[in-house]
Amino acid sequence: MATHNVQPVLINGAWRESASVSTFEPVNPLTKEPTSEIYPVSSIKDIETAIEHAAEASEDLLNVEPNTIADFLECYADRIEARRSEFVDMAHIETAYPKETRLDGIELPRTTNQLRQAANATRNRSWTYPTIDTQANVRSMYAALEGGVVVFGPNNFPFAFGSISGGDFAAAIAAGNPVIAKANSSHPGTTRLFAEEALEAAQGLDLPTSMVQLIYRTPHDIGERLVSHPLVGATGYTGSRSAGLVLKNAADQAGKPIYLELSSINPVVILPGALQERGPEIAEEFVSSCLLGTGQFCTNPGLVILQKDADTDLFIQSVSQQFGDAPVGTLLGESVEKGIVAGVRALQDAGAELLVGGESGGGTGFCHQNTLFQVTGAQFLAQAETLQEEAFGNESLLILVDDLDQTQQILRSLEGNLTGTIYSANNGADDATYNQVAHILRRKVGRLINDKMPTGVAVSPAMNHGGPFPATGHPGFTAVGIPAAITRFSQLQCFDNVSPNRLPAELQDENPLGIWRCVDEKWTN
Amino acid sequence: MATHNVQPVLINGAWRESASVSTFEPVNPLTKEPTSEIYPVSSIKDIETAIEHAAEASEDLLNVEPNTIADFLECYADRIEARRSEFVDMAHIETAYPKETRLDGIELPRTTNQLRQAANATRNRSWTYPTIDTQANVRSMYAALEGGVVVFGPNNFPFAFGSISGGDFAAAIAAGNPVIAKANSSHPGTTRLFAEEALEAAQGLDLPTSMVQLIYRTPHDIGERLVSHPLVGATGYTGSRSAGLVLKNAADQAGKPIYLELSSINPVVILPGALQERGPEIAEEFVSSCLLGTGQFCTNPGLVILQKDADTDLFIQSVSQQFGDAPVGTLLGESVEKGIVAGVRALQDAGAELLVGGESGGGTGFCHQNTLFQVTGAQFLAQAETLQEEAFGNESLLILVDDLDQTQQILRSLEGNLTGTIYSANNGADDATYNQVAHILRRKVGRLINDKMPTGVAVSPAMNHGGPFPATGHPGFTAVGIPAAITRFSQLQCFDNVSPNRLPAELQDENPLGIWRCVDEKWTN
Repeated sequence: MATHNVQPVLINGAWRESASVSTFEPVNPLTKEPTSEIYPVSSIKDIETAIEHAAEASEDLLNVEPNTIADFLECYADRIEARRSEFVDMAHIETAYPKETRLDGIELPRTTNQLRQAANATRNRSWTYPTIDTQANVRSMYAALEGGVVVFGPNNFPFAFGSISGGDFAAAIAAGNPVIAKANSSHPGTTRLFAEEALEAAQGLDLPTSMVQLIYRTPHDIGERLVSHPLVGATGYTGSRSAGLVLKNAADQAGKPIYLELSSINPVVILPGALQERGPEIAEEFVSSCLLGTGQFCTNPGLVILQKDADTDLFIQSVSQQFGDAPVGTLLGESVEKGIVAGVRALQDAGAELLVGGESGGGTGFCHQNTLFQVTGAQFLAQAETLQEEAFGNESLLILVDDLDQTQQILRSLEGNLTGTIYSANNGADDATYNQVAHILRRKVGRLINDKMPTGVAVSPAMNHGGPFPATGHPGFTAVGIPAAITRFSQLQCFDNVSPNRLPAELQDENPLGIWRCVDEKWTN
Repeated sequence: MATHNVQPVLINGAWRESASVSTFEPVNPLTKEPTSEIYPVSSIKDIETAIEHAAEASEDLLNVEPNTIADFLECYADRIEARRSEFVDMAHIETAYPKETRLDGIELPRTTNQLRQAANATRNRSWTYPTIDTQANVRSMYAALEGGVVVFGPNNFPFAFGSISGGDFAAAIAAGNPVIAKANSSHPGTTRLFAEEALEAAQGLDLPTSMVQLIYRTPHDIGERLVSHPLVGATGYTGSRSAGLVLKNAADQAGKPIYLELSSINPVVILPGALQERGPEIAEEFVSSCLLGTGQFCTNPGLVILQKDADTDLFIQSVSQQFGDAPVGTLLGESVEKGIVAGVRALQDAGAELLVGGESGGGTGFCHQNTLFQVTGAQFLAQAETLQEEAFGNESLLILVDDLDQTQQILRSLEGNLTGTIYSANNGADDATYNQVAHILRRKVGRLINDKMPTGVAVSPAMNHGGPFPATGHPGFTAVGIPAAITRFSQLQCFDNVSPNRLPAELQDENPLGIWRCVDEKWTN
């Protein structure tokens, strides 16, 4: 590939030269050198062309059997696996994530598993929640939106949350929508490889040519045009709060659904009994969770609440020691390094006591020392807004509280988060206080966890990877977990007095698909 | 009751003097005279006090058994029925709706039925959609929000969509939320009577004192503060598009869910075969639906698409005759009369041909002649935006199209609507064209109807009283239909690795409540 050629965009089933306003070069986070690929920043022309073709594809997809869409998802998963070493190599260059222990060993299987689960839900129609009232002859189900779905992927999961490979992509496609993927600028090459395979898979099944389209970057105002365009159905966005809120505002004003995953500090409450019972074990779990992937997880434990006592002193000592000893991982890029530097400075300015780390560097490429702060409960309450701002990366803040009452006050002062964790003693010593913590915490978070760190997010039908604002834009939706994640990218359609032969198969009396449905308030298949 | 006393507001379980900025007097639409009751316009002080108490009640309700909330809804329904003649008399004075054929005969039973259906869903927990993954030990369900729910009721259903008696109220309460009701200014007295009974019902069951609160009106900026307040959980709003979009903007910016039902012209497509087969019958159905309640229904058929031919001429003749002959109903108030006058003028300015009516007056009190317009398909397409603006009341616009292609173009030019209706021949004459119309129409609307007018909205689990923007704010939610309407006022809560004895009863392995749940992808009870 010629070094100075600008990469084409994928629009209307073909790789074509972008109507670009400028270009950018991704940077290898380990070497801080450009990767030698040049990508276009799309103008409004690319965007409008892609949107119009997606809208056509959205109508064409009405005539495509769900099973063919399922075939696409499965065929795409197979193709990803067939080319896995190339994906892993490219993502390693663009993200610095370890090949075996992260990209190939964990994230790629998660991604193809997710695509296959979505295919399964497309076949069994679980995400459509068919509801039938035989007496009134009123029937409803969820069905694809009108217009394409725009997906903005985050920097931290080049595969599993990638704009053309991850959960939002799989969900939007499974519901029968075309996707316009907006690559994350930190790993455009990885995204390009996915798009190549997605296109081949779609073409192989004679699917609408614009079912999968890809652009790499847009100026900010054009991003806002994209999510608010009359022909767009909805948007899925995972990324920074600041950029996400700008897009949310544009989409909201146009009345376009936008699903956001923005930021989260994932409070962990370690009750005194648990600390007494197994402090060293919890310390290890915490360090491992907090530094995993250089702390670049949406569910990274960024806030730990501990009651002051002798066990707590030991815990802090141990954790500080481990933070100092652990190797410093590479961050995803310069902006992430700058972000953690700014976050650390903000905590210091607010009077947080630095226990370990605190400076840039200490590892290879873009990096920052493993950093741990502490504050008292009173300090936190005095500046709760500042002290709960996310510093994305290998950093965490410990809060030393006086008593249960102060813990409750702190929990009440928290914004919405993805997760909240409570560690309690196995011997029952914390049972009396557990509920007093849990009943506040569980409404602040999408997922309440017991006795393990929050960084694992199982792809389970019962998962909620969501939470109250500003963790996401709406407390009723999840970005992980099938079928619920799929149903986000749909509209509720009701059929009132419609003749049997005109009903979608999902809603016909005889249940020709043999799927789960709620008929006269009973679930049957 | 003293004529010049300002009515108190209901805050924190007591009727208290409002911290008001001004007052207003509702007007009897039949006599155009004030009803002799004076109501306060609340200041920010009332609002903040109510919000704080609602937030406390929201936490207190965590300790209340769902069955007690169901008892409340049922007891409240009983109390409404026990005092029905007073409700009917007051609503008649404030809305001019007929007592027997509307208020007592239809709307009151619908209202109490809805409250009882909500009670039933509270008992059987259907709205919580429990989902269990036994292998991963991850479990999720929908649960009440944090903070009170604000409900703004519309002018056109003083009972069934009333802020403290209607569908949004029932849904918010059923999910375990306290409600702050904002009365519609056109029927504050009716709302007050409901609040009296709701309070008594709550007190009789020792429920949190601030579970139901009532204010009557606020200045606009304070309405925006209300829906965006950090301690508010969500808002339900039914009313005008202009006011609704201002509230939506405020709520969106604060990340607060807001469910809106804004406006809808409910397109009706009458295919040629149907018109040939039973034109006179359809004409009668249309006139009756369009003039029902003086056309003041969200699902009023405001746009009818007909293909030009001899049957169409007869249809138009018949409909025009009936519109002219039918008695002119009273409108809900001066603002509704002004609204239809403005809407009619806008249609005339856009070149629509007036077939009948067109002027204020013709009946008793606030009123406007039954009004019918026609345009050609080409005219409509040239000014689609103006010609699809809702003129709320006893008015409709007929579009005469050249062919199926033009019908499709018109349907594509429509905004989101609550309903879309297709009349087709029973003898199969329209079968070839039906799908070509339906596949476009069904994505533009929440409910696709065959062969009947849209004004009936069954309270059915399968109902969708919703639709794409700007009919509502989100295409996935319905305001009518239990359990889905309830689930709107909730958050998704996930329990990951939580000990069995700490799980909500809905999620415990042994299913102690015997409720429908999705366990390992199978629905069982």
